[in-house]
Amino acid sequence: VGREPASEFALIGAIRGLLAARGPGEGVRTGPGDDCAVLAPPPDAELLFTIDEAVEGVHFERTWLGAAEIGRRTMIQNLSDIAAMAGRPRWAVLALAAPEPVPDLLDIVEGASACAAAWGAAVVGGNVTRGPRLSVTVALVGEVETGRAVRRAGAQAGDALYVTGEPGLARAGLLALARGRASEVDLAPAAARWRAPRPRIEEARFLRDRAGARAMIDLSDGLSGDLAHICEESGVGALIARDRLPVGEALARAARALGEDPRELVLAGGEDYELLLAAPGDTAEAARAEFESRFGAALVRIGEVRVGRAIEIVAAPGEPPRPLAFTSFQHFAPR
Amino acid sequence: VGREPASEFALIGAIRGLLAARGPGEGVRTGPGDDCAVLAPPPDAELLFTIDEAVEGVHFERTWLGAAEIGRRTMIQNLSDIAAMAGRPRWAVLALAAPEPVPDLLDIVEGASACAAAWGAAVVGGNVTRGPRLSVTVALVGEVETGRAVRRAGAQAGDALYVTGEPGLARAGLLALARGRASEVDLAPAAARWRAPRPRIEEARFLRDRAGARAMIDLSDGLSGDLAHICEESGVGALIARDRLPVGEALARAARALGEDPRELVLAGGEDYELLLAAPGDTAEAARAEFESRFGAALVRIGEVRVGRAIEIVAAPGEPPRPLAFTSFQHFAPR
Repeated sequence: VGREPASEFALIGAIRGLLAARGPGEGVRTGPGDDCAVLAPPPDAELLFTIDEAVEGVHFERTWLGAAEIGRRTMIQNLSDIAAMAGRPRWAVLALAAPEPVPDLLDIVEGASACAAAWGAAVVGGNVTRGPRLSVTVALVGEVETGRAVRRAGAQAGDALYVTGEPGLARAGLLALARGRASEVDLAPAAARWRAPRPRIEEARFLRDRAGARAMIDLSDGLSGDLAHICEESGVGALIARDRLPVGEALARAARALGEDPRELVLAGGEDYELLLAAPGDTAEAARAEFESRFGAALVRIGEVRVGRAIEIVAAPGEPPRPLAFTSFQHFAPR
Repeated sequence: VGREPASEFALIGAIRGLLAARGPGEGVRTGPGDDCAVLAPPPDAELLFTIDEAVEGVHFERTWLGAAEIGRRTMIQNLSDIAAMAGRPRWAVLALAAPEPVPDLLDIVEGASACAAAWGAAVVGGNVTRGPRLSVTVALVGEVETGRAVRRAGAQAGDALYVTGEPGLARAGLLALARGRASEVDLAPAAARWRAPRPRIEEARFLRDRAGARAMIDLSDGLSGDLAHICEESGVGALIARDRLPVGEALARAARALGEDPRELVLAGGEDYELLLAAPGDTAEAARAEFESRFGAALVRIGEVRVGRAIEIVAAPGEPPRPLAFTSFQHFAPR
């Protein structure tokens, strides 16, 4: 138990200064520096609440991400959880653990705070502690119109299954980083995507309001695992078509460079923070063109929701469906 | 990156079952198991938001606390932050990191969840990850009547300074645990206090409503450090009297057994989660007897708020004031 006041309070003071320089967020009555932040809740809305943690050596290596990128990426994970409910992010608190009060803790906070601000949210408090390895935890409160959060439960047999953007690309980037090949021309775009995925906040609201999304999840565990979450919560099964899984140019090049099957990257690839949703096929199909032009991202129909609990995949046109192998990321799994 | 689904999802499933068995908390529209919890905000209230982390080997040793006690104690730290603003706790999310998916992670969640429920709050979500050492992070949202949060800023020159309960006792307990003497008859009550401090939630609301508290903080860094926080935020100084610092029977016995000066334990002792407040002396004094009988805890006037920025202590009656040494706990300080 230490006895010298200098370092920790100085660090906390510097963090407060940095956050204050950004100005208070909307609805912030008392920001960082008291026992709690004091916040004015939105009228006529429900609150969303989520937490996520990123640990050095588990979720990232320091050689893969700069300090500001670590803060940004952890914030994005949480922003994406708010997106998956079709909400808007509002207020975040940050818990940092580090072996030493390294100066780049400030950069981590700055990265998280700048990212929050870019998406309409504010960092309103936090905690700093010593810990065996760098770890960044963000808890985020958002808002959503009352009764209009899109849950995982809600998919109905007959719904179409859609996925946004380029799932699998972040996973290719993670493999490139892990293999020390992230600067190769065919792999750099994938690594960039892993470092800074896009939280699909406005996209999710469009999908709820225009495409009729009634179940939605962000791809953090990977498409195969996250589809299982939707099916489990909704009490339904699913059938997807392997040849419908989107493989864009960037993913195709990265997969080739890595010697991986691009569609396996799509199925296993978590950490993309793309959206997977179930919606009536007609409604979603009618909104697809506008989605793609408005957001510059694909909206791809990959299969359908079925009665029963089987989750299956058709490997190639004309082949019989087979159970979808479960290939998601597991923190505690044997490596 | 693992490839086997069993362990992590099974653990998460067990945690969800445990939380579901407690029933949803008030205002919980969607609890654990979706991308976010969905919550109905209180009408006519502001929100409070805080986060705190406890790391094995930094804040506690596994030999000092059972698993359920680890969860409870981390929850208490957060409940106490809500108390310090005179609010009521509502919803918590939990982030757990551990080297292995040890079964007693469930006990940690149970301890945190039972403690939250005992104080009117609910655990509504969380995250589990692998990490180098056990760490428990709780983020907590509370509510307070609009405009009525008691901040650290707000102390005025002439106010009296009060402290609740038995500050210093938890610090004696921590020393007893660190020295392997927590089972000694004179030290067991102190260790018990460190293991399970009481969040002063109703007490804080009484102090705001009846004693006129206009600045308040919970003792987490220690009296000397937390008094400095109040003075800094309020732009005032303070003078306290050493012989006014409360030393009850339990603290006196524990300090004697440890060979420590009990008043030094009061000044340095964080982690008590007692309240330190500034209030007009007349108002507070008039409410003191009722406070003590209602809550079974002392409310002791230890000094006063002054103009200027000096924070001083009178060591013994008749002696001149001297600067108050700063003896608070620092995570990053040299040990």
